[in-house]
Amino acid sequence: MYQEPVFELHRGGKMAITATVPLTTRDDLSLAYTPGVAEVCRAIAADESLVNTFTWVANTVAVVTDGSAVLGLGNIGPRAAMPVMEGKAVLFKQFGGVDSVPVCLDTQDIDEIVATVTALAPSFGGINLEDISAPRCFEIERRLDEALPIPVFHDDQHGTAIVVLAALRNAAELLDRKLGDLRVVISGAGAAGVAVTKILIAGGVQAANVIVCDSRGIIHSGREGLAGAKLELASITNGTGRTGAIAEALRGADVFIGLSGGSIAEEGLAGMAPGAIIFALANPTPEVEPAVAARYASVVATGRSDYPNQINNVLAFPGVFRGALDAGATRITEGMKLAAADAIAAVVANDLRPDAIVPAALDPRVAPAVATAVAKAAVRDGVIRQA
Amino acid sequence: MYQEPVFELHRGGKMAITATVPLTTRDDLSLAYTPGVAEVCRAIAADESLVNTFTWVANTVAVVTDGSAVLGLGNIGPRAAMPVMEGKAVLFKQFGGVDSVPVCLDTQDIDEIVATVTALAPSFGGINLEDISAPRCFEIERRLDEALPIPVFHDDQHGTAIVVLAALRNAAELLDRKLGDLRVVISGAGAAGVAVTKILIAGGVQAANVIVCDSRGIIHSGREGLAGAKLELASITNGTGRTGAIAEALRGADVFIGLSGGSIAEEGLAGMAPGAIIFALANPTPEVEPAVAARYASVVATGRSDYPNQINNVLAFPGVFRGALDAGATRITEGMKLAAADAIAAVVANDLRPDAIVPAALDPRVAPAVATAVAKAAVRDGVIRQA
Repeated sequence: MYQEPVFELHRGGKMAITATVPLTTRDDLSLAYTPGVAEVCRAIAADESLVNTFTWVANTVAVVTDGSAVLGLGNIGPRAAMPVMEGKAVLFKQFGGVDSVPVCLDTQDIDEIVATVTALAPSFGGINLEDISAPRCFEIERRLDEALPIPVFHDDQHGTAIVVLAALRNAAELLDRKLGDLRVVISGAGAAGVAVTKILIAGGVQAANVIVCDSRGIIHSGREGLAGAKLELASITNGTGRTGAIAEALRGADVFIGLSGGSIAEEGLAGMAPGAIIFALANPTPEVEPAVAARYASVVATGRSDYPNQINNVLAFPGVFRGALDAGATRITEGMKLAAADAIAAVVANDLRPDAIVPAALDPRVAPAVATAVAKAAVRDGVIRQA
Repeated sequence: MYQEPVFELHRGGKMAITATVPLTTRDDLSLAYTPGVAEVCRAIAADESLVNTFTWVANTVAVVTDGSAVLGLGNIGPRAAMPVMEGKAVLFKQFGGVDSVPVCLDTQDIDEIVATVTALAPSFGGINLEDISAPRCFEIERRLDEALPIPVFHDDQHGTAIVVLAALRNAAELLDRKLGDLRVVISGAGAAGVAVTKILIAGGVQAANVIVCDSRGIIHSGREGLAGAKLELASITNGTGRTGAIAEALRGADVFIGLSGGSIAEEGLAGMAPGAIIFALANPTPEVEPAVAARYASVVATGRSDYPNQINNVLAFPGVFRGALDAGATRITEGMKLAAADAIAAVVANDLRPDAIVPAALDPRVAPAVATAVAKAAVRDGVIRQA
């Protein structure tokens, strides 16, 4: 058992710690450890901001999960989540030069998660929340963002949202459409659906032109039983007050963004406006096969690496944290997220094609461009820590 | 400011994360991250023990502190403690091949520390507690040891105790004395003092022949106000019921072990039995200068690298965890600690000299020997996790 290449690759894990200082002589030890290290401790005790200069903290992010919503696998717990968190950690390093540590928590209680992350925060320069189920993720992120003096970023929300906005910006550009004119249907009102809706509105889509659907159909202000993020969505989106199933929402829509993991009937897509944009982002099985989607859309994107236009968070999170850490940002603002989306879009803006609206996941230009844009936005938004 | 070599060395920290898998092609990404990683997650969800095979968890230790008792600097907090924890982490890797992550906690509340470490435990194969003040460290270690299915080891207690026992074993051997005959005075009843007392007794010293002193003098069963670990020491040590100051304890003693950070008057040492053994382990300033100690002792050891016979925890902790992790140990037993001490002593047992009762801190033979002995003891003590 477990002889397949993917298990062989994972044997012993995907990451390691390395020392960046010499440790071979007695003098080495007396600098890196006792007695020399005491000098550095004393300096930080006198001025805590020096922890960012003389330790690895300012370049290190905790990748935190409770294992409650891992990939499309659901609530598989903290141990089974670890391979994803290690994957995230090595991508952080590979693309952003960010050191990161997987922290898989043995609790799914909101208060306990907030308390635990708050307690370990002095060890890190940022907190990347990962694969925490909605709606718990919203409260956890909000409370940590308020409590901590370092950036907190739920990647399933904002990483996805940033890349979707970048892709939609370029798709609209390619089709000579304005974001403000597009009628957008979003399938899924979980972490990604809520964040995508918010960033699209912040990025120029008219709130009234967005319709969000969940497993029960269109979210509208007359629907009973709505609470939290969905209640908020109901109050700001769906200006024409549509009700019913997703096919109703798709009638005349210009954009479909699938973030739910479900499938979408071809009949629904057939009702979209001509020259539509379809992002079928469920992974590994898109809501609609790209070949089918192409019958109704001028631009099609998925979450998969084996089709064109892969909407992949790796385009966002390494550069976002690289920029935030470089700037000494205390949080990740909406302005920083929008700047990240613009930077991703700009990398391929001069060479847009229907099968190239976003950079490839491995494009080495992306993370540095995102980092620069995010750092600038952090300065502009005034969220830089004081030395 | 901060131009000295020790600050230059510490700039940006002393450690980094590295990927141990390739990440340069699309295929690499699809194995290390989505969609391939989902296979591994599913396997672990079905059998949680596989987390030890297919992630870095089984080779990774959290180095946890609350910054309450850092080196001899005292309660300097979690940020100022970070350079020490990073130092520990790089020594873990250098000598034991153990990956480790510094976790500096923003709380000094016992319940919160226990809750936090318990919550993050699925991410690690072991917990090394570090620089947590006594008596809090005793309760924290006990509760975590009971709660967690992985080894928990407070290095300030047991690392020190293991190396002291190894050194005393070899010093006694060199002087042709038996541990069971030695009258031992221990100065300091904090984390190290308590643990050294216990391991010496477990290792063959007669409990009645040990006298422990704290800042108020000899600990004896008639002393008022004793609680916790000191009350326990009073009931098992000091069989002759001595009272008074440390000089009283030293009268006729064969061994002095200084673990308090204070200094010791030469007059006290002058009262020791001929051919005494003096371990003056306060760092960076020993309780007595080695040259002065040598007037009264046949063997002298300190905690410093610039004198002979350095009693340094680095002789113990990398090998202890290497052995525990290799064996899949669920805890660190007394037998494993004694085995570690024996292994350290054995490395230099065939070439004992008064200035060479313990191996040098950089001796590459030590950690493998300790690891082998500890792993064997874990098997013998039946504390191996079931596959």
